[in-house]
Amino acid sequence: MPKWKLVIEYQGTRYRGWQDQANARTVQGELRQAAETLLGERPEIVGAGRTDAGVHALKQVAYLRVRAPHPVAMLRQELNDLLPSDINILEATEAPPRFHARRDAVERFYLYQISTRRRAFAKPFVWWVKDRLDVGKMNAAAVILPGRHDFAAFCDKRGKDASTLVEVTRAELRVPGDLILFRIGASHFLWKMVRRIVGMLVEIGRGNLTPKDLQRFLVDSSASAAQWTAPPSGLFLECVRYEGDEAPGELLPAFFFRG
Amino acid sequence: MPKWKLVIEYQGTRYRGWQDQANARTVQGELRQAAETLLGERPEIVGAGRTDAGVHALKQVAYLRVRAPHPVAMLRQELNDLLPSDINILEATEAPPRFHARRDAVERFYLYQISTRRRAFAKPFVWWVKDRLDVGKMNAAAVILPGRHDFAAFCDKRGKDASTLVEVTRAELRVPGDLILFRIGASHFLWKMVRRIVGMLVEIGRGNLTPKDLQRFLVDSSASAAQWTAPPSGLFLECVRYEGDEAPGELLPAFFFRG
Repeated sequence: MPKWKLVIEYQGTRYRGWQDQANARTVQGELRQAAETLLGERPEIVGAGRTDAGVHALKQVAYLRVRAPHPVAMLRQELNDLLPSDINILEATEAPPRFHARRDAVERFYLYQISTRRRAFAKPFVWWVKDRLDVGKMNAAAVILPGRHDFAAFCDKRGKDASTLVEVTRAELRVPGDLILFRIGASHFLWKMVRRIVGMLVEIGRGNLTPKDLQRFLVDSSASAAQWTAPPSGLFLECVRYEGDEAPGELLPAFFFRG
Repeated sequence: MPKWKLVIEYQGTRYRGWQDQANARTVQGELRQAAETLLGERPEIVGAGRTDAGVHALKQVAYLRVRAPHPVAMLRQELNDLLPSDINILEATEAPPRFHARRDAVERFYLYQISTRRRAFAKPFVWWVKDRLDVGKMNAAAVILPGRHDFAAFCDKRGKDASTLVEVTRAELRVPGDLILFRIGASHFLWKMVRRIVGMLVEIGRGNLTPKDLQRFLVDSSASAAQWTAPPSGLFLECVRYEGDEAPGELLPAFFFRG
Protein backbone atom coordinates (compact mmCIF):
# COMPACT_ATOMS: atom_id res chain seq x y z
CA MET A 1 0.00 0.00 0.00
CA PRO A 2 1.90 3.08 -1.21
CA LYS A 3 1.57 6.20 0.96
CA TRP A 4 2.78 9.62 -0.10
CA LYS A 5 3.27 12.88 1.77
CA LEU A 6 2.08 15.87 -0.19
CA VAL A 7 2.87 19.54 0.47
CA ILE A 8 0.22 21.69 -1.18
CA GLU A 9 -0.38 25.40 -1.80
CA TYR A 10 -3.83 26.63 -2.69
CA GLN A 11 -5.88 29.75 -3.09
CA GLY A 12 -9.02 29.05 -1.08
CA THR A 13 -11.22 31.70 -2.70
CA ARG A 14 -13.22 29.33 -4.93
CA TYR A 15 -13.50 26.48 -2.41
CA ARG A 16 -15.75 25.58 0.50
CA GLY A 17 -12.60 24.85 2.49
CA TRP A 18 -10.23 21.90 2.57
CA GLN A 19 -12.47 19.11 3.84
CA ASP A 20 -14.62 16.83 1.64
CA GLN A 21 -18.26 17.91 1.48
CA ALA A 22 -21.19 16.55 -0.43
CA ASN A 23 -22.28 18.93 -3.19
CA ALA A 24 -19.56 21.49 -2.57
CA ARG A 25 -16.23 22.11 -4.24
CA THR A 26 -13.40 21.56 -1.76
CA VAL A 27 -9.62 21.31 -2.07
CA GLN A 28 -9.60 17.72 -0.78
CA GLY A 29 -12.38 16.88 -3.24
CA GLU A 30 -10.37 18.25 -6.18
CA LEU A 31 -7.30 16.37 -5.03
CA ARG A 32 -9.32 13.17 -4.62
CA GLN A 33 -10.71 13.50 -8.12
CA ALA A 34 -7.27 14.10 -9.65
CA ALA A 35 -5.79 11.14 -7.74
CA GLU A 36 -8.67 8.86 -8.69
CA THR A 37 -8.28 9.79 -12.35
CA LEU A 38 -4.54 9.19 -12.23
CA LEU A 39 -4.46 6.08 -10.06
CA GLY A 40 -7.71 4.37 -11.00
CA GLU A 41 -8.98 3.89 -7.47
CA ARG A 42 -10.51 5.96 -4.69
CA PRO A 43 -7.60 7.12 -2.50
CA GLU A 44 -7.46 7.74 1.24
CA ILE A 45 -6.55 11.38 1.85
CA VAL A 46 -5.93 12.95 5.26
CA GLY A 47 -4.87 16.58 5.66
CA ALA A 48 -2.97 18.10 8.58
CA GLY A 49 -5.61 20.73 9.20
CA ARG A 50 -9.00 21.79 7.91
CA THR A 51 -9.07 25.22 6.40
CA ASP A 52 -12.41 27.04 6.08
CA ALA A 53 -14.08 28.37 2.97
CA GLY A 54 -11.94 31.10 1.44
CA VAL A 55 -8.87 30.34 3.56
CA HIS A 56 -5.57 29.74 1.73
CA ALA A 57 -2.62 27.47 2.37
CA LEU A 58 1.06 28.10 1.66
CA LYS A 59 2.10 24.62 2.80
CA GLN A 60 -0.78 22.33 3.74
CA VAL A 61 0.35 18.75 4.33
CA ALA A 62 -1.68 15.64 3.47
CA TYR A 63 -1.06 11.99 2.93
CA LEU A 64 -2.43 10.06 0.00
CA ARG A 65 -2.79 6.29 0.16
CA VAL A 66 -3.89 3.78 -2.47
CA ARG A 67 -3.61 0.01 -2.90
CA ALA A 68 -1.92 -0.34 -6.27
CA PRO A 69 1.75 0.61 -6.62
CA HIS A 70 2.66 3.74 -8.59
CA PRO A 71 6.07 5.37 -9.04
CA VAL A 72 6.54 8.54 -6.99
CA ALA A 73 9.02 10.18 -9.38
CA MET A 74 6.44 11.95 -11.57
CA LEU A 75 3.54 11.94 -9.09
CA ARG A 76 3.71 15.66 -8.32
CA GLN A 77 3.58 16.66 -11.95
CA GLU A 78 0.99 14.03 -12.88
CA LEU A 79 -1.38 15.29 -10.19
CA ASN A 80 -0.71 18.96 -11.01
CA ASP A 81 -1.57 18.30 -14.65
CA LEU A 82 -5.02 17.17 -13.46
CA LEU A 83 -5.60 19.82 -10.79
CA PRO A 84 -7.12 23.29 -11.29
CA SER A 85 -4.60 26.12 -11.43
CA ASP A 86 -5.36 27.40 -7.90
CA ILE A 87 -4.19 24.15 -6.29
CA ASN A 88 -0.52 23.29 -6.66
CA ILE A 89 1.38 20.34 -5.23
CA LEU A 90 4.82 21.59 -4.20
CA GLU A 91 6.25 18.24 -3.06
CA ALA A 92 5.26 14.58 -3.28
CA THR A 93 7.48 12.10 -1.46
CA GLU A 94 7.16 8.56 -0.14
CA ALA A 95 5.89 8.56 3.45
CA PRO A 96 6.66 6.02 6.16
CA PRO A 97 3.79 3.48 6.49
CA ARG A 98 2.73 4.89 9.86
CA PHE A 99 2.89 8.57 8.84
CA HIS A 100 -0.30 10.42 9.76
CA ALA A 101 -0.56 13.99 8.45
CA ARG A 102 -2.83 15.18 11.27
CA ARG A 103 -1.86 13.16 14.34
CA ASP A 104 1.92 13.39 13.77
CA ALA A 105 1.88 17.17 13.37
CA VAL A 106 3.45 18.76 16.42
CA GLU A 107 2.86 22.40 15.55
CA ARG A 108 0.88 24.43 13.04
CA PHE A 109 1.43 28.02 11.94
CA TYR A 110 -1.15 30.41 10.57
CA LEU A 111 -0.47 33.78 8.97
CA TYR A 112 -3.05 36.58 8.77
CA GLN A 113 -2.66 39.59 6.46
CA ILE A 114 -4.34 42.91 7.16
CA SER A 115 -4.00 45.67 4.59
CA THR A 116 -4.18 49.24 5.79
CA ARG A 117 -4.79 50.51 2.27
CA ARG A 118 -6.99 49.72 -0.70
CA ARG A 119 -5.26 47.41 -3.21
CA ALA A 120 -6.28 46.60 -6.76
CA PHE A 121 -4.50 43.23 -6.84
CA ALA A 122 -4.82 41.75 -3.37
CA LYS A 123 -8.47 41.66 -2.32
CA PRO A 124 -8.64 37.83 -2.05
CA PHE A 125 -5.48 37.77 0.11
CA VAL A 126 -6.04 40.41 2.77
CA TRP A 127 -8.54 41.97 5.11
CA TRP A 128 -8.61 45.64 4.22
CA VAL A 129 -9.22 47.57 7.45
CA LYS A 130 -10.00 51.22 6.76
CA ASP A 131 -9.84 52.42 10.37
CA ARG A 132 -6.56 53.56 11.80
CA LEU A 133 -5.08 50.77 13.96
CA ASP A 134 -2.86 51.20 16.99
CA VAL A 135 -0.29 48.49 16.35
CA GLY A 136 1.32 49.03 19.76
CA LYS A 137 -1.92 48.03 21.47
CA MET A 138 -2.40 45.06 19.13
CA ASN A 139 1.10 43.94 19.99
CA ALA A 140 0.45 44.31 23.72
CA ALA A 141 -2.48 41.93 23.24
CA ALA A 142 -0.61 39.47 21.02
CA VAL A 143 2.10 38.88 23.61
CA ILE A 144 -0.57 37.60 26.03
CA LEU A 145 -1.35 34.67 23.74
CA PRO A 146 1.62 32.29 24.13
CA GLY A 147 1.13 29.60 26.78
CA ARG A 148 -1.57 27.11 27.62
CA HIS A 149 -5.03 28.71 27.65
CA ASP A 150 -8.67 27.76 27.33
CA PHE A 151 -9.71 29.17 23.96
CA ALA A 152 -13.39 28.26 24.38
CA ALA A 153 -14.38 31.91 23.88
CA PHE A 154 -12.66 31.89 20.48
CA CYS A 155 -14.03 28.67 19.01
CA ASP A 156 -17.18 27.96 17.10
CA LYS A 157 -19.12 25.72 19.49
CA ARG A 158 -20.55 23.83 16.57
CA GLY A 159 -17.05 22.45 16.11
CA LYS A 160 -17.48 20.22 19.16
CA ASP A 161 -13.74 20.14 19.85
CA ALA A 162 -12.91 17.54 22.49
CA SER A 163 -10.88 20.03 24.47
CA THR A 164 -10.59 23.77 24.13
CA LEU A 165 -7.22 23.89 25.88
CA VAL A 166 -4.56 24.95 23.40
CA GLU A 167 -0.81 25.47 23.80
CA VAL A 168 0.10 28.60 21.83
CA THR A 169 3.80 28.47 21.00
CA ARG A 170 4.20 31.70 19.08
CA ALA A 171 2.36 34.96 18.39
CA GLU A 172 4.04 37.74 16.43
CA LEU A 173 3.06 40.92 14.70
CA ARG A 174 4.99 42.74 11.97
CA VAL A 175 4.17 45.82 9.95
CA PRO A 176 5.91 45.78 6.55
CA GLY A 177 4.71 48.85 4.63
CA ASP A 178 0.93 48.96 4.34
CA LEU A 179 0.43 45.43 5.69
CA ILE A 180 -0.01 44.18 9.24
CA LEU A 181 1.04 40.54 9.52
CA PHE A 182 0.06 38.29 12.41
CA ARG A 183 1.54 34.83 12.86
CA ILE A 184 0.39 32.33 15.44
CA GLY A 185 1.82 28.88 16.16
CA ALA A 186 0.13 26.24 18.32
CA SER A 187 -0.12 22.53 18.96
CA HIS A 188 -3.50 22.60 17.26
CA PHE A 189 -6.25 25.11 16.47
CA LEU A 190 -9.97 25.21 17.21
CA TRP A 191 -12.59 26.00 14.62
CA LYS A 192 -12.45 29.74 13.70
CA MET A 193 -9.95 30.38 16.51
CA VAL A 194 -7.42 32.36 14.45
CA ARG A 195 -10.04 34.53 12.77
CA ARG A 196 -11.61 35.41 16.14
CA ILE A 197 -8.26 36.24 17.69
CA VAL A 198 -7.47 38.49 14.72
CA GLY A 199 -10.92 40.06 14.91
CA MET A 200 -10.33 40.86 18.54
CA LEU A 201 -6.81 42.21 17.85
CA VAL A 202 -8.28 44.59 15.27
CA GLU A 203 -10.93 45.77 17.76
CA ILE A 204 -8.09 46.43 20.18
CA GLY A 205 -6.20 48.30 17.45
CA ARG A 206 -9.32 50.39 16.82
CA GLY A 207 -9.52 51.23 20.51
CA ASN A 208 -12.90 49.51 21.03
CA LEU A 209 -11.37 46.78 23.23
CA THR A 210 -8.21 46.57 25.32
CA PRO A 211 -5.52 43.90 25.81
CA LYS A 212 -7.22 43.26 29.17
CA ASP A 213 -10.39 42.19 27.38
CA LEU A 214 -8.38 39.58 25.50
CA GLN A 215 -6.91 38.41 28.80
CA ARG A 216 -10.42 38.09 30.24
CA PHE A 217 -11.64 36.03 27.27
CA LEU A 218 -8.79 33.57 27.88
CA VAL A 219 -10.15 32.71 31.34
CA ASP A 220 -13.89 33.20 30.82
CA SER A 221 -14.96 30.25 28.69
CA SER A 222 -18.58 31.43 28.70
CA ALA A 223 -17.59 34.55 26.73
CA SER A 224 -17.69 34.59 22.93
CA ALA A 225 -15.55 36.45 20.43
CA ALA A 226 -17.82 35.32 17.58
CA GLN A 227 -18.93 38.87 16.74
CA TRP A 228 -15.35 39.81 15.82
CA THR A 229 -14.60 36.97 13.41
CA ALA A 230 -12.15 38.28 10.80
CA PRO A 231 -12.86 37.43 7.14
CA PRO A 232 -11.24 34.28 5.70
CA SER A 233 -9.52 36.12 2.82
CA GLY A 234 -6.56 37.25 4.94
CA LEU A 235 -5.84 33.82 6.43
CA PHE A 236 -3.15 31.36 5.29
CA LEU A 237 -2.20 28.01 6.77
CA GLU A 238 1.51 28.83 6.69
CA CYS A 239 3.10 25.48 7.52
CA VAL A 240 2.81 22.29 9.53
CA ARG A 241 5.75 21.13 11.62
CA TYR A 242 6.56 17.45 12.25
CA GLU A 243 9.19 16.01 14.58
CA GLY A 244 12.58 17.09 13.28
CA ASP A 245 11.27 19.97 11.12
CA GLU A 246 12.58 23.47 11.73
CA ALA A 247 10.28 26.24 12.96
CA PRO A 248 9.44 28.87 10.35
CA GLY A 249 11.83 31.80 10.07
CA GLU A 250 11.31 35.52 9.60
CA LEU A 251 7.69 36.63 9.32
CA LEU A 252 7.21 37.67 5.69
CA PRO A 253 4.06 38.44 3.72
CA ALA A 254 2.52 35.55 1.78
CA PHE A 255 2.84 37.92 -1.12
CA PHE A 256 4.34 41.28 -1.75
CA PHE A 257 2.73 43.77 -4.05
CA ARG A 258 4.61 46.83 -5.16
CA GLY A 259 3.34 50.38 -5.02
CA MET B 1 -12.67 73.73 -15.77
CA PRO B 2 -10.99 71.60 -13.12
CA LYS B 3 -8.48 69.05 -14.40
CA TRP B 4 -6.97 66.32 -12.25
CA LYS B 5 -4.07 63.95 -12.77
CA LEU B 6 -4.86 60.43 -11.60
CA VAL B 7 -2.38 57.61 -10.96
CA ILE B 8 -4.22 54.31 -11.13
CA GLU B 9 -3.42 50.65 -10.44
CA TYR B 10 -5.67 47.94 -11.84
CA GLN B 11 -5.89 44.22 -12.35
CA GLY B 12 -6.85 43.86 -16.00
CA THR B 13 -8.19 40.31 -15.80
CA ARG B 14 -11.91 41.23 -15.88
CA TYR B 15 -11.62 44.07 -18.39
CA ARG B 16 -11.50 44.43 -22.15
CA GLY B 17 -8.54 46.73 -21.67
CA TRP B 18 -8.24 50.37 -20.68
CA GLN B 19 -9.97 52.12 -23.57
CA ASP B 20 -13.73 52.88 -23.72
CA GLN B 21 -15.65 50.37 -25.81
CA ALA B 22 -19.32 50.04 -26.56
CA ASN B 23 -20.82 46.98 -24.83
CA ALA B 24 -17.62 45.94 -23.08
CA ARG B 25 -16.36 46.51 -19.57
CA THR B 26 -13.19 48.61 -19.63
CA VAL B 27 -11.14 50.37 -16.97
CA GLN B 28 -11.78 53.78 -18.51
CA GLY B 29 -15.49 52.95 -18.65
CA GLU B 30 -15.58 52.08 -14.94
CA LEU B 31 -13.68 55.24 -14.11
CA ARG B 32 -16.03 57.31 -16.27
CA GLN B 33 -19.05 55.84 -14.55
CA ALA B 34 -17.64 56.49 -11.06
CA ALA B 35 -16.69 60.06 -11.99
CA GLU B 36 -20.08 60.75 -13.56
CA THR B 37 -21.86 59.45 -10.44
CA LEU B 38 -19.68 61.59 -8.20
CA LEU B 39 -19.51 64.77 -10.26
CA GLY B 40 -22.88 64.74 -11.96
CA GLU B 41 -21.57 65.25 -15.48
CA ARG B 42 -19.84 63.24 -18.18
CA PRO B 43 -16.09 63.81 -17.70
CA GLU B 44 -13.33 63.95 -20.28
CA ILE B 45 -10.83 61.18 -19.52
CA VAL B 46 -7.54 60.61 -21.35
CA GLY B 47 -5.08 57.88 -20.35
CA ALA B 48 -1.35 57.83 -21.00
CA GLY B 49 -1.49 54.48 -22.74
CA ARG B 50 -4.01 51.89 -23.85
CA THR B 51 -3.60 48.55 -22.19
CA ASP B 52 -5.13 45.49 -23.84
CA ALA B 53 -7.67 43.06 -22.41
CA GLY B 54 -6.17 41.26 -19.41
CA VAL B 55 -3.17 43.58 -19.10
CA HIS B 56 -2.57 45.18 -15.69
CA ALA B 57 -1.23 48.56 -14.60
CA LEU B 58 0.86 49.44 -11.59
CA LYS B 59 0.79 53.16 -12.33
CA GLN B 60 -1.35 54.16 -15.27
CA VAL B 61 -1.77 57.92 -15.58
CA ALA B 62 -4.88 59.70 -16.79
CA TYR B 63 -6.41 63.13 -16.61
CA LEU B 64 -10.00 63.76 -15.68
CA ARG B 65 -11.69 67.00 -16.67
CA VAL B 66 -15.16 68.34 -15.87
CA ARG B 67 -16.86 71.75 -16.01
CA ALA B 68 -18.13 72.19 -12.45
CA PRO B 69 -15.66 72.83 -9.65
CA HIS B 70 -15.06 70.08 -7.07
CA PRO B 71 -12.51 69.98 -4.22
CA VAL B 72 -9.53 67.72 -4.91
CA ALA B 73 -8.87 66.85 -1.23
CA MET B 74 -11.19 63.84 -1.03
CA LEU B 75 -11.39 63.05 -4.75
CA ARG B 76 -9.22 59.95 -4.59
CA GLN B 77 -11.26 58.37 -1.82
CA GLU B 78 -14.59 59.47 -3.29
CA LEU B 79 -13.79 57.82 -6.61
CA ASN B 80 -12.37 54.67 -4.95
CA ASP B 81 -15.57 54.29 -2.96
CA LEU B 82 -17.44 54.04 -6.26
CA LEU B 83 -14.94 51.89 -8.17
CA PRO B 84 -14.76 48.07 -8.21
CA SER B 85 -12.06 46.59 -5.97
CA ASP B 86 -9.69 45.73 -8.85
CA ILE B 87 -9.28 49.40 -9.84
CA ASN B 88 -7.57 51.64 -7.31
CA ILE B 89 -6.69 55.31 -7.62
CA LEU B 90 -3.34 55.84 -5.92
CA GLU B 91 -3.10 59.60 -6.37
CA ALA B 92 -5.40 62.40 -7.46
CA THR B 93 -3.87 65.86 -7.77
CA GLU B 94 -4.69 69.09 -9.55
CA ALA B 95 -3.14 69.18 -13.01
CA PRO B 96 -1.94 72.24 -14.93
CA PRO B 97 -4.59 73.35 -17.47
CA ARG B 98 -2.46 72.21 -20.43
CA PHE B 99 -1.49 68.81 -18.97
CA HIS B 100 -2.13 66.00 -21.41
CA ALA B 101 -1.64 62.48 -20.01
CA ARG B 102 -0.71 60.95 -23.37
CA ARG B 103 1.03 63.70 -25.34
CA ASP B 104 3.12 64.97 -22.41
CA ALA B 105 4.44 61.51 -21.48
CA VAL B 106 8.11 61.27 -22.43
CA GLU B 107 8.70 57.62 -21.57
CA ARG B 108 6.64 54.54 -20.69
CA PHE B 109 7.79 51.40 -18.92
CA TYR B 110 6.27 47.96 -19.21
CA LEU B 111 7.07 44.95 -17.03
CA TYR B 112 6.49 41.35 -18.08
CA GLN B 113 6.48 38.44 -15.61
CA ILE B 114 7.29 34.90 -16.68
CA SER B 115 6.99 32.14 -14.11
CA THR B 116 9.16 29.08 -14.51
CA ARG B 117 7.02 27.09 -12.11
CA ARG B 118 3.35 26.38 -11.49
CA ARG B 119 1.84 28.72 -8.87
CA ALA B 120 -1.47 28.41 -7.04
CA PHE B 121 -1.81 32.15 -6.42
CA ALA B 122 -0.38 33.90 -9.42
CA LYS B 123 -2.03 32.64 -12.62
CA PRO B 124 -3.57 36.02 -13.57
CA PHE B 125 -0.21 37.79 -13.10
CA VAL B 126 2.31 35.65 -14.99
CA TRP B 127 2.92 33.62 -18.10
CA TRP B 128 3.83 30.16 -16.88
CA VAL B 129 6.39 28.72 -19.32
CA LYS B 130 6.98 25.04 -18.71
CA ASP B 131 9.96 24.66 -21.03
CA ARG B 132 13.45 25.27 -19.74
CA LEU B 133 14.59 28.74 -20.83
CA ASP B 134 18.17 29.80 -21.52
CA VAL B 135 18.21 33.19 -19.83
CA GLY B 136 21.67 33.97 -21.19
CA LYS B 137 20.36 33.80 -24.75
CA MET B 138 17.27 35.83 -23.84
CA ASN B 139 19.56 38.45 -22.37
CA ALA B 140 21.75 38.49 -25.47
CA ALA B 141 18.59 39.29 -27.43
CA ALA B 142 17.26 41.88 -24.97
CA VAL B 143 20.42 43.99 -25.21
CA ILE B 144 19.79 44.43 -28.95
CA LEU B 145 16.57 46.32 -28.29
CA PRO B 146 17.70 49.75 -27.02
CA GLY B 147 18.01 52.37 -29.76
CA ARG B 148 15.80 53.63 -32.55
CA HIS B 149 14.33 50.78 -34.57
CA ASP B 150 11.44 50.03 -36.89
CA PHE B 151 9.17 47.76 -34.86
CA ALA B 152 6.75 47.10 -37.72
CA ALA B 153 7.35 43.33 -37.38
CA PHE B 154 6.17 43.51 -33.76
CA CYS B 155 3.00 45.53 -34.13
CA ASP B 156 -0.52 44.54 -34.92
CA LYS B 157 -1.12 46.15 -38.28
CA ARG B 158 -4.73 46.75 -37.39
CA GLY B 159 -3.39 49.37 -35.00
CA LYS B 160 -2.60 51.68 -37.95
CA ASP B 161 0.15 53.44 -36.01
CA ALA B 162 1.30 56.55 -37.84
CA SER B 163 4.93 55.52 -37.54
CA THR B 164 6.48 52.22 -36.46
CA LEU B 165 9.79 53.83 -35.52
CA VAL B 166 10.26 53.57 -31.75
CA GLU B 167 13.09 54.75 -29.52
CA VAL B 168 13.68 52.01 -26.94
CA THR B 169 15.39 53.55 -23.93
CA ARG B 170 15.77 50.49 -21.71
CA ALA B 171 15.51 46.70 -21.86
CA GLU B 172 16.45 44.60 -18.85
CA LEU B 173 16.03 41.05 -17.69
CA ARG B 174 16.22 39.78 -14.12
CA VAL B 175 15.69 36.33 -12.64
CA PRO B 176 14.53 36.53 -9.02
CA GLY B 177 13.82 32.97 -7.88
CA ASP B 178 11.30 31.24 -10.14
CA LEU B 179 10.40 34.40 -12.02
CA ILE B 180 11.91 35.93 -15.14
CA LEU B 181 11.23 39.67 -15.28
CA PHE B 182 11.56 41.76 -18.42
CA ARG B 183 11.31 45.54 -18.35
CA ILE B 184 11.23 47.71 -21.43
CA GLY B 185 11.14 51.50 -21.61
CA ALA B 186 10.41 53.52 -24.75
CA SER B 187 9.12 56.84 -26.02
CA HIS B 188 5.91 55.07 -26.98
CA PHE B 189 4.73 51.56 -27.79
CA LEU B 190 2.92 50.03 -30.74
CA TRP B 191 -0.09 47.77 -30.41
CA LYS B 192 0.97 44.36 -29.00
CA MET B 193 4.65 45.30 -29.34
CA VAL B 194 5.72 44.25 -25.83
CA ARG B 195 3.88 40.92 -25.95
CA ARG B 196 5.47 40.06 -29.32
CA ILE B 197 8.93 41.00 -28.11
CA VAL B 198 8.43 38.81 -25.03
CA GLY B 199 7.05 35.98 -27.14
CA MET B 200 10.14 36.13 -29.32
CA LEU B 201 12.46 36.30 -26.27
CA VAL B 202 10.84 33.12 -24.95
CA GLU B 203 11.32 31.39 -28.31
CA ILE B 204 14.96 32.40 -28.12
CA GLY B 205 15.14 31.05 -24.56
CA ARG B 206 13.67 27.78 -25.79
CA GLY B 207 16.30 27.57 -28.50
CA ASN B 208 13.81 27.79 -31.36
CA LEU B 209 15.05 31.22 -32.44
CA THR B 210 18.32 33.11 -31.94
CA PRO B 211 19.21 36.70 -30.99
CA LYS B 212 20.08 37.14 -34.67
CA ASP B 213 16.46 36.44 -35.60
CA LEU B 214 15.38 39.30 -33.36
CA GLN B 215 17.99 41.53 -35.01
CA ARG B 216 16.62 40.58 -38.43
CA PHE B 217 13.03 41.40 -37.38
CA LEU B 218 14.18 44.90 -36.39
CA VAL B 219 15.25 45.67 -39.96
CA ASP B 220 12.78 43.59 -41.96
CA SER B 221 9.46 45.41 -41.58
CA SER B 222 7.70 42.83 -43.77
CA ALA B 223 8.33 40.12 -41.14
CA SER B 224 5.78 39.39 -38.43
CA ALA B 225 6.25 38.21 -34.87
CA ALA B 226 2.49 37.79 -34.46
CA GLN B 227 2.73 34.03 -33.96
CA TRP B 228 4.77 34.50 -30.80
CA THR B 229 2.45 36.94 -29.01
CA ALA B 230 2.84 36.36 -25.25
CA PRO B 231 -0.37 36.21 -23.16
CA PRO B 232 -1.63 39.44 -21.56
CA SER B 233 -1.65 38.04 -18.01
CA GLY B 234 2.08 38.63 -17.45
CA LEU B 235 2.06 42.24 -18.64
CA PHE B 236 1.96 45.37 -16.46
CA LEU B 237 2.12 49.01 -17.50
CA GLU B 238 4.73 49.83 -14.88
CA CYS B 239 4.86 53.62 -15.00
CA VAL B 240 4.67 56.68 -17.20
CA ARG B 241 7.37 59.30 -17.02
CA TYR B 242 6.76 63.02 -17.56
CA GLU B 243 9.33 65.82 -17.80
CA GLY B 244 11.07 66.05 -14.42
CA ASP B 245 10.03 62.56 -13.20
CA GLU B 246 12.71 60.09 -12.20
CA ALA B 247 13.24 56.87 -14.14
CA PRO B 248 12.09 53.72 -12.33
CA GLY B 249 14.65 52.07 -10.05
CA GLU B 250 15.59 48.47 -9.42
CA LEU B 251 13.61 45.90 -11.40
CA LEU B 252 11.35 44.17 -8.88
CA PRO B 253 8.42 41.82 -9.38
CA ALA B 254 4.98 43.43 -9.51
CA PHE B 255 4.21 40.95 -6.79
CA PHE B 256 6.04 38.23 -4.98
CA PHE B 257 4.56 35.09 -3.53
CA ARG B 258 6.48 33.07 -1.00
CA GLY B 259 7.40 29.44 -1.35
